[in-house]
Amino acid sequence: MQHKILLTDCPDEKGLIARITGLCSQHHLNIIKNNEFVDDSHNRFFMRTELAGELDDDAFESELKAHLPAGGQYRLVDNGRKRIVILVTKEAHCLGDILMKASYGDLNVEIAAVIGNYDTLQNLTEKFSIPFHLISHEGLSRSEHEKFIQEQIAHYQPDYVVLAKYMRILTPELVAAYPHRIINIHHSFLPAFIGARPYQQAFDRGVKMIGATAHFVTNNLDEGPIIEQDVIHTDHTYSAERMASAGRDVEKYVLSRALRFVTEERVFVTGNRTVVFR
Amino acid sequence: MQHKILLTDCPDEKGLIARITGLCSQHHLNIIKNNEFVDDSHNRFFMRTELAGELDDDAFESELKAHLPAGGQYRLVDNGRKRIVILVTKEAHCLGDILMKASYGDLNVEIAAVIGNYDTLQNLTEKFSIPFHLISHEGLSRSEHEKFIQEQIAHYQPDYVVLAKYMRILTPELVAAYPHRIINIHHSFLPAFIGARPYQQAFDRGVKMIGATAHFVTNNLDEGPIIEQDVIHTDHTYSAERMASAGRDVEKYVLSRALRFVTEERVFVTGNRTVVFR
Amino acid sequence: MQHKILLTDCPDEKGLIARITGLCSQHHLNIIKNNEFVDDSHNRFFMRTELAGELDDDAFESELKAHLPAGGQYRLVDNGRKRIVILVTKEAHCLGDILMKASYGDLNVEIAAVIGNYDTLQNLTEKFSIPFHLISHEGLSRSEHEKFIQEQIAHYQPDYVVLAKYMRILTPELVAAYPHRIINIHHSFLPAFIGARPYQQAFDRGVKMIGATAHFVTNNLDEGPIIEQDVIHTDHTYSAERMASAGRDVEKYVLSRALRFVTEERVFVTGNRTVVFR
Amino acid sequence: MQHKILLTDCPDEKGLIARITGLCSQHHLNIIKNNEFVDDSHNRFFMRTELAGELDDDAFESELKAHLPAGGQYRLVDNGRKRIVILVTKEAHCLGDILMKASYGDLNVEIAAVIGNYDTLQNLTEKFSIPFHLISHEGLSRSEHEKFIQEQIAHYQPDYVVLAKYMRILTPELVAAYPHRIINIHHSFLPAFIGARPYQQAFDRGVKMIGATAHFVTNNLDEGPIIEQDVIHTDHTYSAERMASAGRDVEKYVLSRALRFVTEERVFVTGNRTVVFR
Repeated sequence: MQHKILLTDCPDEKGLIARITGLCSQHHLNIIKNNEFVDDSHNRFFMRTELAGELDDDAFESELKAHLPAGGQYRLVDNGRKRIVILVTKEAHCLGDILMKASYGDLNVEIAAVIGNYDTLQNLTEKFSIPFHLISHEGLSRSEHEKFIQEQIAHYQPDYVVLAKYMRILTPELVAAYPHRIINIHHSFLPAFIGARPYQQAFDRGVKMIGATAHFVTNNLDEGPIIEQDVIHTDHTYSAERMASAGRDVEKYVLSRALRFVTEERVFVTGNRTVVFR
Repeated sequence: MQHKILLTDCPDEKGLIARITGLCSQHHLNIIKNNEFVDDSHNRFFMRTELAGELDDDAFESELKAHLPAGGQYRLVDNGRKRIVILVTKEAHCLGDILMKASYGDLNVEIAAVIGNYDTLQNLTEKFSIPFHLISHEGLSRSEHEKFIQEQIAHYQPDYVVLAKYMRILTPELVAAYPHRIINIHHSFLPAFIGARPYQQAFDRGVKMIGATAHFVTNNLDEGPIIEQDVIHTDHTYSAERMASAGRDVEKYVLSRALRFVTEERVFVTGNRTVVFR
Repeated sequence: MQHKILLTDCPDEKGLIARITGLCSQHHLNIIKNNEFVDDSHNRFFMRTELAGELDDDAFESELKAHLPAGGQYRLVDNGRKRIVILVTKEAHCLGDILMKASYGDLNVEIAAVIGNYDTLQNLTEKFSIPFHLISHEGLSRSEHEKFIQEQIAHYQPDYVVLAKYMRILTPELVAAYPHRIINIHHSFLPAFIGARPYQQAFDRGVKMIGATAHFVTNNLDEGPIIEQDVIHTDHTYSAERMASAGRDVEKYVLSRALRFVTEERVFVTGNRTVVFR
Repeated sequence: MQHKILLTDCPDEKGLIARITGLCSQHHLNIIKNNEFVDDSHNRFFMRTELAGELDDDAFESELKAHLPAGGQYRLVDNGRKRIVILVTKEAHCLGDILMKASYGDLNVEIAAVIGNYDTLQNLTEKFSIPFHLISHEGLSRSEHEKFIQEQIAHYQPDYVVLAKYMRILTPELVAAYPHRIINIHHSFLPAFIGARPYQQAFDRGVKMIGATAHFVTNNLDEGPIIEQDVIHTDHTYSAERMASAGRDVEKYVLSRALRFVTEERVFVTGNRTVVFR
């Protein structure tokens, strides 16, 4: 018996749930779990259907396409481990958390490789027997540097690219190569404190909470669809450094939740928002 | 065009979503929103389906019963205001919050009446032009007292009975009269601090958070199915009194969220747990 | 025996705690609770000292001024009920919560009056036997309107002015009349979503949490020192209206916490930040 | 210039803050930060004073003892790295988090060694160049096994012993050897779900939140003074396994916060409660 997930993203119409689940029934597939959502402002229908049964994927997908609205995507994916490549700079906490969770099974990912523009995290990565590629940006133009990065990523054919505190802005070429497949962790409760040194900004503004935001990367910096956010309370005794230290716990927590949602195929994008079926 | 909610609670079988949503389609009903859950440990299927369209309720319900598993409940309810009766003792915060929210429209309830075993909250209740019935327990046996209460409740034929800090234990007769329709707010994060004086217990134990729990009332005191819970942080400077004061904010917040879930028909009971479709 | 609070706000120097608590000892005052904080970036010392004993206030304050750094404030205040005037527009939830809490003693305030630029909340206010003054802005210039408001406030000589969803921007004259004594609740997690329609902004940005911020009012709109903030989780199913409804619970919670901190004399302002001694 | 922390734990008396801070002044010590608390129910005074200056520790401690109440403890400790020994069984998440945080400086601890009753975590520990001692309990009586453990711990002379998911109950001998210096993480929001399989218990009870509790170990199992607690929201879709997985994030977060408080000398014990100066 196979376990599959059917991901439907199509123009909304009457009767879609009945038609899709009806097709599943005709194919003797058992629905383990079903979530759906209609985005009225874009007239778009989203459904995530966990299926069990014997399945001819291609035949089933063809039939879905034949019976369901044009302009839709009907993807049958498996429930298995997703392949990721992680980009880092110097900070260890997010990378470390993903390495740990992958190693004891709390994240269903295969970390194909880690790429850093410094060698700071090479040692940590290799402790976990994961290849680390140092691709320094020194002496290179932005586009040259990123060309090397993109080639290295492409080599691994990852399902997702994770920016685990990668502190450089991606070029449109790289973003375009992995649409809604690059996940970034931003060290603030977006849209607050966009840009550089958010903990210093947070300190200066005297906020009583700090947060973190995981989002898909688009060409608008810090403006991509938000996947997950969380915050913690602070108070007047927190320096900017102490805020940053506390923030590291939220960052890694938020990033790993977002990664879990994405790798379990729970996330759709609609306009600049996400639908997350928990 | 009507708006209705179909509530399905039946033995699990293959193809239920397809059959139910198929019947909706045949009746030209548009599904606005659909949530489902299977409780594997009880082999039970739960679905909440928001429908829009022209509908002959009785015909539709009959057809559902004919085509769906025996031993199931298939209820078509409307989306409208629910009728509640509130029982209180002396504390104002939960009652006050419900009165306020009902008056400005954040809770879709009609408060038919408030019944108190003291007159402490009569004045507050009547400010909002709601009838208040004082039914003192003094000089009465428990069963006599509750017989009067039950008669008064029955007079109003409420959809739900809300214990908004009603500090007496209900008799099995009253509980049986409103199965899964009596909602209580318990002043702790159940199952911690069952019983009397939970804030004193919490203080004595030196906990760093206090909570509140809204649950359906069953004959096992503080053991009914939990609908909603929340907590707030405290610290060593909190006395038992200050904990209680902070606790009042959580209590009213948790109770009003539970009430919203219940009155919007989002809650099913399975075994001693609830399914809450948010 | 009297209970007093000594509030110290002065340039930082070595030995201040010893000198101040030494003076308290010499005056046979018992220190019930003491909190201090030094803001290094402004070289400023803040201390809040709860005292019990027999006390000649003027003599004690003179002595403090004689022995402590110039350019400091040394205020002896009592622990009692603070007098507030509340400004509102049309939304009931924050006003209702303050009315309720004041009536059952969870906020140690005397609500001298409520002033509204609409009469929407007159009825609610008068239920609690509090005077309501309608001062419509219609047909008046901003400065004319606010002159009437300011006169009405001045009549009551409040300790604090609370903007409980008062939807108009104050003139510099009114702000200047009550420095760090006007408290506003802003319907977002500042500095996110400054300006109009924050819940629509939050919806459009697709955030996964919404928040509220209580702050002192200064002449920079939404930029005054933050007293308290909190957030709640939302998800893709929340419309802008549902976000606003959920937001109302956070708004009233945050405002009433900020009010408690302020009226218990727990809040100092340093630069554009607050020190809150919990 | 030295940085030290003075920890005062003594019977409450009038004028203690003045006397202690006065002595600091006489010794030309600058107070960087001061926190105090009086536990009225035990008539006990607690103060934590961060000091900077040139200091003869022994002379200063003697003078404190001479001038301050008998029956008190007056300890001058440095602000530096604390030495810990970690006990584990098979679960990696708490150990991994401490190893990571110690390695990038978010926890100011020196991990002297890890001791396990299984070898499951040997490999992980040694990745970080920390000695791992396997002390299997197989074939040994409880007291024999723990005698070996205690000897191994003693060898390292740690400031604190951390039970990072060590799944065996300590003997009174070991507990007595490190009074208020053994920290445990319990996988529930104590006092809920005391005992075995708390996530299964939580699932069975249908709670809507799960938590974790860090506490000092005493001879009453799960009853020692609580240092820190936190919770996360769950819902009906969480199986016991999914609860446990989510719980691991809270556990490691709570344990590392408690460790930070303890190693920064922020925690006092009074009765069965803790005072935590944040």
